[in-house]
Amino acid sequence: MTTAVLTGHSSIAGRSLPGTGDALHAIAPDTGEELDPPYSQIDVEQLREATAAAADAFPSFSRLEPEAHATFLDSIADEIDALGDALIERGMRETGLPQARLVGERARTTGQLRLFAEVVRSGEHRGVRIDPAQPDRTPLPRVDIRQRRIPLGPVAVFGASNFPLAFSTAGGDTASALAAGCPVVFKAHSSHPGTSELVASAIARAIATHGLHPGVFSHVFGPGRSVGQALVSDPDIHAVGFTGSREGGLALVRTAQQRPVPIPVYAEMSSVNPVFILPGALDGDVQALAAGYVQSATGSSGQLCTQPGIVFVPRGEHGDAFLRAVAEALNAATGQTMLSPSIAAAWREGVATRDAHAEVLARGADGEGPHAPAPVIHAADLPAFDTDHVLHDEIFGAASLVVRYDDVADLVQAASRLEGQLTATLQLSADDHELASALLPVLERKVGRILAGGWPTGVEVGHAMVHGGPFPATSDSRTTSVGTLAIDRFLRPVAYQNIPDELLPEALRDANPWHVPRLVDGRRES
Amino acid sequence: MTTAVLTGHSSIAGRSLPGTGDALHAIAPDTGEELDPPYSQIDVEQLREATAAAADAFPSFSRLEPEAHATFLDSIADEIDALGDALIERGMRETGLPQARLVGERARTTGQLRLFAEVVRSGEHRGVRIDPAQPDRTPLPRVDIRQRRIPLGPVAVFGASNFPLAFSTAGGDTASALAAGCPVVFKAHSSHPGTSELVASAIARAIATHGLHPGVFSHVFGPGRSVGQALVSDPDIHAVGFTGSREGGLALVRTAQQRPVPIPVYAEMSSVNPVFILPGALDGDVQALAAGYVQSATGSSGQLCTQPGIVFVPRGEHGDAFLRAVAEALNAATGQTMLSPSIAAAWREGVATRDAHAEVLARGADGEGPHAPAPVIHAADLPAFDTDHVLHDEIFGAASLVVRYDDVADLVQAASRLEGQLTATLQLSADDHELASALLPVLERKVGRILAGGWPTGVEVGHAMVHGGPFPATSDSRTTSVGTLAIDRFLRPVAYQNIPDELLPEALRDANPWHVPRLVDGRRES
Repeated sequence: MTTAVLTGHSSIAGRSLPGTGDALHAIAPDTGEELDPPYSQIDVEQLREATAAAADAFPSFSRLEPEAHATFLDSIADEIDALGDALIERGMRETGLPQARLVGERARTTGQLRLFAEVVRSGEHRGVRIDPAQPDRTPLPRVDIRQRRIPLGPVAVFGASNFPLAFSTAGGDTASALAAGCPVVFKAHSSHPGTSELVASAIARAIATHGLHPGVFSHVFGPGRSVGQALVSDPDIHAVGFTGSREGGLALVRTAQQRPVPIPVYAEMSSVNPVFILPGALDGDVQALAAGYVQSATGSSGQLCTQPGIVFVPRGEHGDAFLRAVAEALNAATGQTMLSPSIAAAWREGVATRDAHAEVLARGADGEGPHAPAPVIHAADLPAFDTDHVLHDEIFGAASLVVRYDDVADLVQAASRLEGQLTATLQLSADDHELASALLPVLERKVGRILAGGWPTGVEVGHAMVHGGPFPATSDSRTTSVGTLAIDRFLRPVAYQNIPDELLPEALRDANPWHVPRLVDGRRES
Repeated sequence: MTTAVLTGHSSIAGRSLPGTGDALHAIAPDTGEELDPPYSQIDVEQLREATAAAADAFPSFSRLEPEAHATFLDSIADEIDALGDALIERGMRETGLPQARLVGERARTTGQLRLFAEVVRSGEHRGVRIDPAQPDRTPLPRVDIRQRRIPLGPVAVFGASNFPLAFSTAGGDTASALAAGCPVVFKAHSSHPGTSELVASAIARAIATHGLHPGVFSHVFGPGRSVGQALVSDPDIHAVGFTGSREGGLALVRTAQQRPVPIPVYAEMSSVNPVFILPGALDGDVQALAAGYVQSATGSSGQLCTQPGIVFVPRGEHGDAFLRAVAEALNAATGQTMLSPSIAAAWREGVATRDAHAEVLARGADGEGPHAPAPVIHAADLPAFDTDHVLHDEIFGAASLVVRYDDVADLVQAASRLEGQLTATLQLSADDHELASALLPVLERKVGRILAGGWPTGVEVGHAMVHGGPFPATSDSRTTSVGTLAIDRFLRPVAYQNIPDELLPEALRDANPWHVPRLVDGRRES
């Protein structure tokens, strides 16, 4: 186990660098206490050292052999595990999240690094396609063309407030960028700097162990408006990963578009994750359904991208029984400490606005400390919801809105009027399949993931996951930020025409020394 | 064979619609003659009928069974073939391109439609991934997650001036969008309206034959500044395909970014397609090399996206011999009629500017008619080229620039300073492999396709082709506009969690009724 010595510095290409700017302190959200050490913020010139080092590291890192590359990702996971309890303890102090949640999040973080290592070994992401020469084709012979995907270049990743491990320093964006072969310059979120520094040290150790160029990873503290914007503007940065607010994401998108050479920004921004309770679902155990809803809406103090923010419930006897069960469960719930005072304040503001637009169905009790407000569920009727856009807005935290509907036919219209979302969930029984069939094509165009039963929180990290969706859920619906497809965000295709075998990249050589899967003349090589 | 009756109207969802706006005439570039019929231009309200019809057509078209879908694409190709000589004759009159070129371009156009039909049958583009449930996994059971890609929605395609068939009405953008399952609203290029109308009629016949919703394809004439911009702003349009100038492409990109819901624009814009003649290549047949260069630079009057606009040549005896051979070949060349008076004028302006910045190596003879200017090749030394950005600009047409270099070591630097390009070409012998190895990693980051030997013109339509590249060659380096990977531009992933089998899309069902290739737990199903 590693002793956690926090420096309060950025780490530029493996070198500890005190910043020239104002220091920031993590604040323990349960007590409001400032945590040591202070974290000094770098300036834009110091940032340039990080991006230049990333550019220097690119040629060697982007061409690593698959096994060395995969083992490096595995080593990051091992080094994170080796941080032991110190990481969980610091994370709990900085975020107020409970131990079990952080232990689970650590497992998810290391698991996704190891999953990306498997992807690197498999070579699926290289997208190799070969159209062999046809010298005898008429009227013209066909040339030999081979395609593979190459990494875009160094990537900027911004840490998220709500997942100090899985969407932060060595989270999904970093893991997928490193797996693609892109060095990463990571801008830490100011609300959990110590947790972030610990993970950054784990990455740095893995880099040193494997003898990689230290520019493969830099970890910086700095103000968003100067250093964050400069990072996205930097000519050595070729793509951006971000999870956070809509305003924050759109600011980065605008900056990236205004560059002399624009770059892609993958921003996962906001979602209310509508849940459609179809009539048949209420023939079952409404108590269990209500408990599932309240748990999903209030767990982690509701601070999850996939928190169910809007739930459509049919009017009538069964619907009323469900709402009574929801109210009962929520009334028994207690507020949990939110991630930061500012997030708690924004939540209170959002709830105060909603109080003026919808009735309160149920409200729990305040939790301990100043930033553990009582969870709340409001209710409105579908016609009011349809016309009042305020009710469509996300409230980040433990607040949700029940929307009562009369006629299932109205649900399809309601679904078609929603903004883009990460998820949509159907609660249904076999009796609801006809209605579900009508809803599915509408929902497919609105979301990245559709669930039947269960709740949208708890995002499985696998090959088939999509954590994405149409704008404004994300800035680019063609991708995902969770799951192995996320690696595609940092790759682009290049074709090689009649290149001599010895000059070809390994993945394209006749002998296929890396054993990558290949599409030959459009068919899978067996 | 179909008799070609040109109406001069737009076709909105299969209905012939005279526009309310000013009429435009095609102009025969060889004579300057106005060709009948006049083409009336629609207004923005008339355009709305097309986009609304496309939106109406989407639900049924996007869910076509693979065989019906593929056969539809084949039928478009058959209907284009059935237009017979009338299509080639009209194309020749409107563009000044020679018969052999247009016959070849027609074969490429129908060939790519049939190739996309094969893709639709194969199902590779659906990107199916399945992570089966693991009910016994600890600590938590794994849910069943299945991913497929769905079409984005109706697509706007803008016709290009220089390929009246292969990058126009039923060209690569239209073919790949239709193959993805996206209805298309096509804005015809004003320089070949009759050719475009003929092909549009072929598509309309295929739609009727297959009983598809007529909104699957609309064909409109309208001013770029009103109708073109409105098309990109239309809420029913979900992506844009464009091939043309940098100014035109960037204007569409800006409009798409400013929408309430931004959409992707795939604009293929400009490229000078650098060619690096390495010293060993001049040990061979310099006459043949020079002839290849001049042919590639002047064929189709140089009006090709992949025309070799800059050629790096080593100084010295062999380089001088090569340049003499180039001059000899070019002096014997005659100007061919350019696509339009305005394109010819822009070419003259570009050449006049270059005349002031570089010496003339050789100039051919003017061709017949007012718009067949003499092809020209300029020459400059590498240091001058490096510091004079005017010399980096594309001149669309039969002009090229030779850049003489002293030291092969300078080539890598020169390559690293180039803007993004569609292609880069190495002329090399076995003696040059070391230098080529140093150049390749630099070129990979600059271009979409790298050739060894041969010339970049003549883009093979296959599975491995990349016709794309970093900005400003295109607006999105992650894609290609030629070859079957182009279909990916119009698709996005959606995940389905625990959806009952009968509600799943066919491609995701256990029984795999569409026989699509699938990645199961990250491995190819055999």
